[in-house]
Amino acid sequence: MPGLHNETLLFLCSGLGIIPLAGLMGRATEHLARRLGQGLGGLLNATFGNAAELVIALMALNKGLLGVVKASITGSIIGNVLLVFGASALAGGLKFRELKFNRTAVQTSTTSLVLAAIGLLIPTVFHYSAQVRPRGWSPQMEQRLSLAIAVVLFGTYLCSLVFSLHTHRHYFGNPAEHSAEEETDEPAWSRAKAVIVLSLSTCLVAFLSEFLVGTVEATREKLGVTEVFVGIIIVAIVGNAAEHSTAVWVATKNKMDLSLGIAIGSSLQIALFVAPLLVFVSYAFGRPMDLEFTIAEVVAVIVTVHIVAEICNDGETNWFEGVQLLAVYLILAVLFYFLPAAPS
Amino acid sequence: MPGLHNETLLFLCSGLGIIPLAGLMGRATEHLARRLGQGLGGLLNATFGNAAELVIALMALNKGLLGVVKASITGSIIGNVLLVFGASALAGGLKFRELKFNRTAVQTSTTSLVLAAIGLLIPTVFHYSAQVRPRGWSPQMEQRLSLAIAVVLFGTYLCSLVFSLHTHRHYFGNPAEHSAEEETDEPAWSRAKAVIVLSLSTCLVAFLSEFLVGTVEATREKLGVTEVFVGIIIVAIVGNAAEHSTAVWVATKNKMDLSLGIAIGSSLQIALFVAPLLVFVSYAFGRPMDLEFTIAEVVAVIVTVHIVAEICNDGETNWFEGVQLLAVYLILAVLFYFLPAAPS
Amino acid sequence: MPGLHNETLLFLCSGLGIIPLAGLMGRATEHLARRLGQGLGGLLNATFGNAAELVIALMALNKGLLGVVKASITGSIIGNVLLVFGASALAGGLKFRELKFNRTAVQTSTTSLVLAAIGLLIPTVFHYSAQVRPRGWSPQMEQRLSLAIAVVLFGTYLCSLVFSLHTHRHYFGNPAEHSAEEETDEPAWSRAKAVIVLSLSTCLVAFLSEFLVGTVEATREKLGVTEVFVGIIIVAIVGNAAEHSTAVWVATKNKMDLSLGIAIGSSLQIALFVAPLLVFVSYAFGRPMDLEFTIAEVVAVIVTVHIVAEICNDGETNWFEGVQLLAVYLILAVLFYFLPAAPS
Repeated sequence: MPGLHNETLLFLCSGLGIIPLAGLMGRATEHLARRLGQGLGGLLNATFGNAAELVIALMALNKGLLGVVKASITGSIIGNVLLVFGASALAGGLKFRELKFNRTAVQTSTTSLVLAAIGLLIPTVFHYSAQVRPRGWSPQMEQRLSLAIAVVLFGTYLCSLVFSLHTHRHYFGNPAEHSAEEETDEPAWSRAKAVIVLSLSTCLVAFLSEFLVGTVEATREKLGVTEVFVGIIIVAIVGNAAEHSTAVWVATKNKMDLSLGIAIGSSLQIALFVAPLLVFVSYAFGRPMDLEFTIAEVVAVIVTVHIVAEICNDGETNWFEGVQLLAVYLILAVLFYFLPAAPS
Repeated sequence: MPGLHNETLLFLCSGLGIIPLAGLMGRATEHLARRLGQGLGGLLNATFGNAAELVIALMALNKGLLGVVKASITGSIIGNVLLVFGASALAGGLKFRELKFNRTAVQTSTTSLVLAAIGLLIPTVFHYSAQVRPRGWSPQMEQRLSLAIAVVLFGTYLCSLVFSLHTHRHYFGNPAEHSAEEETDEPAWSRAKAVIVLSLSTCLVAFLSEFLVGTVEATREKLGVTEVFVGIIIVAIVGNAAEHSTAVWVATKNKMDLSLGIAIGSSLQIALFVAPLLVFVSYAFGRPMDLEFTIAEVVAVIVTVHIVAEICNDGETNWFEGVQLLAVYLILAVLFYFLPAAPS
Repeated sequence: MPGLHNETLLFLCSGLGIIPLAGLMGRATEHLARRLGQGLGGLLNATFGNAAELVIALMALNKGLLGVVKASITGSIIGNVLLVFGASALAGGLKFRELKFNRTAVQTSTTSLVLAAIGLLIPTVFHYSAQVRPRGWSPQMEQRLSLAIAVVLFGTYLCSLVFSLHTHRHYFGNPAEHSAEEETDEPAWSRAKAVIVLSLSTCLVAFLSEFLVGTVEATREKLGVTEVFVGIIIVAIVGNAAEHSTAVWVATKNKMDLSLGIAIGSSLQIALFVAPLLVFVSYAFGRPMDLEFTIAEVVAVIVTVHIVAEICNDGETNWFEGVQLLAVYLILAVLFYFLPAAPS
């Protein structure tokens, strides 16, 4: 590929390299979770399930690429719900006429997604409302508003863990156990092995993320697309490839609860855990990040949350609902492809 | 009526003339569908069910009245869902305490409506996002964006046909057969008769549409209302009068599945089949039409889709839900009545 | 409290004084309702249930504080749904794993809330659409539009009374009777006693509202918050304190139907009865009020209605859904706290 810029090549390689490593991080987390028992293990799974995205976002945050960080947040939410759940429903629906799942458990999750969408919408509403008012708008006010919202979202996340791992865990089954059992017949790794694999793969992901993030700018220019488009595509593909394949695979076995748990659970974690955490960390890095997203991103998250709530509220799905979700993903991808870059 | 301008009179007459012809087109389509058997017949019904609106819109497109074409699209969606379904639920609900319907089938349709609303929303989001950005916004980008979205919507429509006519047709029953059987005891027309009636009525509708569209401008000025108001009222009344009366009539017989199939099915066809087709045809006519609607139209479609999804998600309706739908229609009609014309 | 301005003290005292009086108005209304029998009594309850808020709003309207009046409308809707229902679900959910309620009855109410949100959204859409158009926008057009919408909302409210008190009253039970029976063992008051208590407490509320409203401006400045923030907080706390405590109390007894009837019913009454009535009365006062709200208020109402519809559509709730509702309330409170005042 002579026409490809070296930086673009580096970008591609580091992206491709992260995919299996992210999968390894996920597997090590699951094995460790099994060793730790249900309570602590569930917590670990729920917290480290999106560690790869978190590492990539931290690298981008450290470089001050706030646009990429935010795009990776919205991209993860959209990608998991529309692309992963859509592909799962399509793949599973081609084999089974109807795919049933536990409506109550999923509804709790879609309501949390609605809450997350509200949390991401409000700073943008604030921005556009405040800037036309006499006393005006300042970045400091927006940061404090975003920090307060991040605290509320994070608090809700902690409550959701109490709900799903403790008071109402009978709704949710235990995805970690199921998936490990079903996917492989391999025995659980020892605690030491799991810790070592998790540490090593995390370091390697961090290392590759360094390159990935460092070459975003050059690649973006080379391909003639925007930062937001790169953020949304990279994360939806690179950061979530492992979850993606697992979710589709279990859907073809008619285990839609597990598949939805991965797809929607992943989106939720990004919105209620990773996004607030990035806000908190950004203060530690000394360059506070707010939660103001572009109107296009906010609209994308809202329509995503809306259509998934609509699709999930009857406790079953089919191949055509998968097509509908993928159609929304395509429409949003088209929007971000054509949308020129925001002023920086 | 001496004060009435001649052109306004012509507008009225051609509008009134189209109503029975549109009904005839519908009946001929149904008879032909019965002759063609379930698969092909269902396809014909699904595709030609809104042929009258399509013919009117093509005439307006040919004259370059893009505002009227777009208003007729939103007006058809709003009118079918709010006016036709609302009147059906009210009329049926005054006779029966509860009107039950197949929740799963209807939910697939309302989800498609959500998808359609997203498709119509995104070009507007693009417009307002892009115009404040440095690289700016151009009509060409908007047309390409709209074309891409039209392709996605059209593809989803084709999938929905496979779903409703093939893989999951047990959800939907066969509206064509039912309605023909129930409404009349007349025997099915011969294939030749159906084809001839269909061809003749289509030609006559096209002929009258020519006058209708030609006098829109003069009538609009005469009555002191906007193009959008005319578009939304004409189509909701003229183009859909036949469906309207059938849907209300079957609702009073507690056949709510059929009634909803007509009302929501018609809206869906407009959004996923007629609108994309008009975009494709506009390229053939050499004056590309985009799918950017005014904010008022987008809001109208979104609230319509939202309230119908809310009402349908429990599988039953009653007279008060009919009142609620009609109240939303009235509120939207008031909005479009007061809203001044957009800059052309 | 030496640092407190006298006016702020008066504001606080009159606010605190209204709370028990509003409770007394509610009790007198209920006792009178029981004496009047089911039909007329239900009507009285439905109409005078929010008499305290109405009195406060009328006083503010009379003083020309339209911003406070509008904020009290949105604040009541948001407060009742998010704060009252949220606290009820949380308190009840800590005692019972699942709190069940009649899905059909609640869905009718949440659909009416959606309708109300549409009614409050449209004047704002009109404002922003019309002002960028050649023929422009005038306060008169907006007032006429608002008046038309108020008529539609009021008409829907009358229909909802026919629905809940007459044609479909079996859905709703009889909240008045239940609550009176359960809360107290005291015998029903005589008709005379109820009328006298109702009249006296209403007069006293009006008297205190005079002070409350008269000191809003000074308090607002003293505390450094906006009119909208005061309006939203005052009404959510002061005007609804009585309903609030009753709704939470019955939720802890697993009577979620009654609790929801109070919380959502109260919001509905504000949106479909009090708000239109205030528009009508404003014409009598000679200073017409429109229904245009700020974008922040419209968004707050829409997200509130959206999340409550999402939570109610399965007919059961739990403590975590209470947390989700309260989280949305907190996020909105943060928004209104930081948002600078609108230009007056």
